Amino acid sequence: MEHKNAIVLAMFGTTVEPALQGLLNIRTRMMENYPETPVKIAFTSNIIRKIWQDRAKDPTYSKAHPEIPEDVLHVKTVLATIADLQNVGYDTIILQPTHIAMGEEFLDLGTYVDSLMRMGTVKKKKYKPFHKVVLGRPALGTYGFDHPYAEDISAAAKALDKDLAMAAKENAALVYMGHGNEHFPSGGAYLELAHRMRERSPETVILIGNVKGFPSLEDVIDKLKLGGIQKVILKPCMVVAGDHAMNDMTGTDVEKPSWQMTLEKEGFEVITVKKGLGELDAFADIFVQHAADAAADADIVLK
Amino acid sequence: MEHKNAIVLAMFGTTVEPALQGLLNIRTRMMENYPETPVKIAFTSNIIRKIWQDRAKDPTYSKAHPEIPEDVLHVKTVLATIADLQNVGYDTIILQPTHIAMGEEFLDLGTYVDSLMRMGTVKKKKYKPFHKVVLGRPALGTYGFDHPYAEDISAAAKALDKDLAMAAKENAALVYMGHGNEHFPSGGAYLELAHRMRERSPETVILIGNVKGFPSLEDVIDKLKLGGIQKVILKPCMVVAGDHAMNDMTGTDVEKPSWQMTLEKEGFEVITVKKGLGELDAFADIFVQHAADAAADADIVLK
Amino acid sequence: MEHKNAIVLAMFGTTVEPALQGLLNIRTRMMENYPETPVKIAFTSNIIRKIWQDRAKDPTYSKAHPEIPEDVLHVKTVLATIADLQNVGYDTIILQPTHIAMGEEFLDLGTYVDSLMRMGTVKKKKYKPFHKVVLGRPALGTYGFDHPYAEDISAAAKALDKDLAMAAKENAALVYMGHGNEHFPSGGAYLELAHRMRERSPETVILIGNVKGFPSLEDVIDKLKLGGIQKVILKPCMVVAGDHAMNDMTGTDVEKPSWQMTLEKEGFEVITVKKGLGELDAFADIFVQHAADAAADADIVLK
Amino acid sequence: MEHKNAIVLAMFGTTVEPALQGLLNIRTRMMENYPETPVKIAFTSNIIRKIWQDRAKDPTYSKAHPEIPEDVLHVKTVLATIADLQNVGYDTIILQPTHIAMGEEFLDLGTYVDSLMRMGTVKKKKYKPFHKVVLGRPALGTYGFDHPYAEDISAAAKALDKDLAMAAKENAALVYMGHGNEHFPSGGAYLELAHRMRERSPETVILIGNVKGFPSLEDVIDKLKLGGIQKVILKPCMVVAGDHAMNDMTGTDVEKPSWQMTLEKEGFEVITVKKGLGELDAFADIFVQHAADAAADADIVLK
Repeated sequence: MEHKNAIVLAMFGTTVEPALQGLLNIRTRMMENYPETPVKIAFTSNIIRKIWQDRAKDPTYSKAHPEIPEDVLHVKTVLATIADLQNVGYDTIILQPTHIAMGEEFLDLGTYVDSLMRMGTVKKKKYKPFHKVVLGRPALGTYGFDHPYAEDISAAAKALDKDLAMAAKENAALVYMGHGNEHFPSGGAYLELAHRMRERSPETVILIGNVKGFPSLEDVIDKLKLGGIQKVILKPCMVVAGDHAMNDMTGTDVEKPSWQMTLEKEGFEVITVKKGLGELDAFADIFVQHAADAAADADIVLK
Repeated sequence: MEHKNAIVLAMFGTTVEPALQGLLNIRTRMMENYPETPVKIAFTSNIIRKIWQDRAKDPTYSKAHPEIPEDVLHVKTVLATIADLQNVGYDTIILQPTHIAMGEEFLDLGTYVDSLMRMGTVKKKKYKPFHKVVLGRPALGTYGFDHPYAEDISAAAKALDKDLAMAAKENAALVYMGHGNEHFPSGGAYLELAHRMRERSPETVILIGNVKGFPSLEDVIDKLKLGGIQKVILKPCMVVAGDHAMNDMTGTDVEKPSWQMTLEKEGFEVITVKKGLGELDAFADIFVQHAADAAADADIVLK
Repeated sequence: MEHKNAIVLAMFGTTVEPALQGLLNIRTRMMENYPETPVKIAFTSNIIRKIWQDRAKDPTYSKAHPEIPEDVLHVKTVLATIADLQNVGYDTIILQPTHIAMGEEFLDLGTYVDSLMRMGTVKKKKYKPFHKVVLGRPALGTYGFDHPYAEDISAAAKALDKDLAMAAKENAALVYMGHGNEHFPSGGAYLELAHRMRERSPETVILIGNVKGFPSLEDVIDKLKLGGIQKVILKPCMVVAGDHAMNDMTGTDVEKPSWQMTLEKEGFEVITVKKGLGELDAFADIFVQHAADAAADADIVLK
Repeated sequence: MEHKNAIVLAMFGTTVEPALQGLLNIRTRMMENYPETPVKIAFTSNIIRKIWQDRAKDPTYSKAHPEIPEDVLHVKTVLATIADLQNVGYDTIILQPTHIAMGEEFLDLGTYVDSLMRMGTVKKKKYKPFHKVVLGRPALGTYGFDHPYAEDISAAAKALDKDLAMAAKENAALVYMGHGNEHFPSGGAYLELAHRMRERSPETVILIGNVKGFPSLEDVIDKLKLGGIQKVILKPCMVVAGDHAMNDMTGTDVEKPSWQMTLEKEGFEVITVKKGLGELDAFADIFVQHAADAAADADIVLK
């Protein structure tokens, strides 16, 4: 029996239309690399998906937003996206997350892949619903022997050279807003990323703080002051410049001061860059490479 | 968080339009019993589903068959049917097979349920894709302590009283064609069913042979002769009177003689009944009851 | 890294010393076949194991029973027996049940094997606690494609030719007492076994009843009468002639009449054979063959 | 049925006799806290266990080392230790790792616990081999919602106050040698620990480098120089002061310079402390607390 391959991009998702660029660019790079393989997107956020479901039912929305692709308007869960492929005969799935760091969402996807592969048959193996379901690594890598996370972090550092060049040109420190979280010690990956970027551009101060968890904006400010910095470029260390970029990073709510407001209050000159990392081709290509690795590790030939 | 329940009926499926009655009657009885709960059907056979997918794309088919319900025309796999429910917020699924005996298909569905329940999150449990996915028993029951299979067989025997009455009226032996298989010793359940039916109508000879595996048509014929039988009612012991009923049971191909041809050649008078067991309300209600049990065992309140 | 193989025989166990022959003969046949591979026994019954643990602590017992082998006296659970092998470097385990039919105990062992194989490492595969753990089939086979259960039943029928010869010599019907159960429809396998035995010796009446579940002793008696039988050989269809053979089969308690008592009361002449099937080399060799198959299917070379 | 609880401490293990103090102190603290519950130790390292197995067989070793406890001399794998408990009726196991950070070994233990809990029975739940098997957190916590890892890191920082006092007294920087690894981005947990310790003693420079992975000794030296440090206390950030403490930390091999040699060559005055963190009661008690949490989360009452 011939197996049929498909790629599913697992994204948290966004409701901010311009922010979709960060996601769609990853999709486009993947499609261009594998022109013969279907590439589907799926959103993991229930809240975001619900909003898109409502928009899909609202004819005025579609009329007002002709630029929104069909697969965003009708985006489904990861499971439903994979199952729709299975329903029409695709039995080999590369599930590629578009997350930055290994955190709770990546682990959740791991349980999906594991579960789908356990759907079996008492009959011969060829009747299993899935031949192979494999999971690609997030941008900053994951645990395991075959692809040391440290190499992934070095590759990610290289993919951000354009940001380093921008900082050098502006003679500014580069401050990234990472997502972070309180349920998984992902801070180390961000710190190691900044460390590897500094090796590529020793004269630039590069710092990553997280919206949630360690290291925080306060830690970033302490180090900016220690380094005598006056001017910073502030950019999300996220694939999209969505809700966090609009509110936590550059919002203007005095009750809930944004990073920009806090940094400016502390006396820094702040240049904000509202672009997701997914919009950088070099960074988007990390996900293409990780999908390629996941396929190759499982002897899947993607075309 | 409020949980949302749905029922999925897992069927092998059929492409024979009139045979759909056996499946749709089960669906109708289930819907009538649980008017507030969505009841979806799914076909497990890849070949049958493919034929329906082709028919769905063919406008002349739909025009010629206005009686085919939408959910048959666009029927999906079990996984895709469940995933579509999950995509719109249903997190509690009763998966009810419409199979007669515990065999390979039932075991396969067990791996599905098991796998879906293992899809987890590192976050609180409420974020799991599924709150509960439970599997109902096939008509003749399954292993385990809570619902002894012997009681299920007795209940199935009772649900077939109309067939016994028909045999008594015709003064004929009742011969069922079961599916059977060569990969699972399900023959015992059929033999025990016939045994329990004989207890309900001791003067009637009741025999079940299988298309595949033990006991075979030859075993049935041996016993008919031993009992001095001359007239038999021949009926499928399957939920639908589909392909097997048309070909294996009543076909007219001399190269591949049907049961009817063989029995007539052996000198028996044969009355064929091309109706699936699912068309008997009493039998269809077994699946309604088994879904109710599966829900109750898991503290799910179906409405 | 070199892998090390071991065989574990999973037995319900017995506390009846002479009955151990049925188990030890299987162990001996296995050892003779694979002289370079450790063969360990494990008892699944908590109650039986507890009794052996008490006996092991009691010096008077050991003195009175010098014939009891060390590995019976200190017998452990299946898990502990496998884990002790893993502790000293065996990473490849053939777990061979000594059960007659696929029932609850066989399914339980399946979850053990499945679980042990899921113990993993994030490191390279060679660090997994187990390289391979595979499960052999019970005597009457199991579901699945590779080894059709019907062929196993035919092979078992052939292995019982000595019993057929004994019945022919005595001009008696052969009545086996099977274990059976109320939680798994295993009756069919017994009925099919009797069917295949009858094919080998058409003039002998062969019937199998179960202590629990279908078919019962009453069913057996009905058929004996139908066949006009006067003399029966009564023998356990179990690997050991232990507690069931002593009490349910040949006991003398009037409050709880044994099969022998009931048959004699019904007017049959009864010859009892208190030997387990495991004592027949041809039957013991079924388990040796099933272990060989399980190993071969997994590309394990047993020596 | 009454359930019986036991605690198993999973340790990498050590062959260095004096280093056992770090492990045995954790065992003692646990035993004192739960005097009615068996506390067993298990070593995960195959190489280390093999050495102990050889020592156990060598009568001269036992004679020369009367101080070695029986449960070290005959130490088994985690699986065999748990299985031996199951063999004698313990069905509820708290598996408490004695690891510092969540890394590959902790994830491996997670697959063990998961697998043991999946060993089931088709019978009622009470016949499952294990009622509950739960896994405690490593010292620096793990992912998940119920016990935020950041709180664990803060608690660990507090447990190291004695080390801070020692550094203050000596007017030295405190440099810990962590294990780290190249397969799991655990570096962040160490960096966050150092951060929290600095908050408790702002005037002390506290740095953690790893034998493997980020951050390295070079990173530590860079920061020591940046801070103008001249004197350091060097101590393992490991539960035992074993092989790493003897060789990587304080070894004298010029071909493979130890941290002490490197630091001294760089001009620092170095005070080495060859004590494992497990020897500090406050740190050992972290594992007692994590076992208590794991039990409480699963409604297990430890006594």
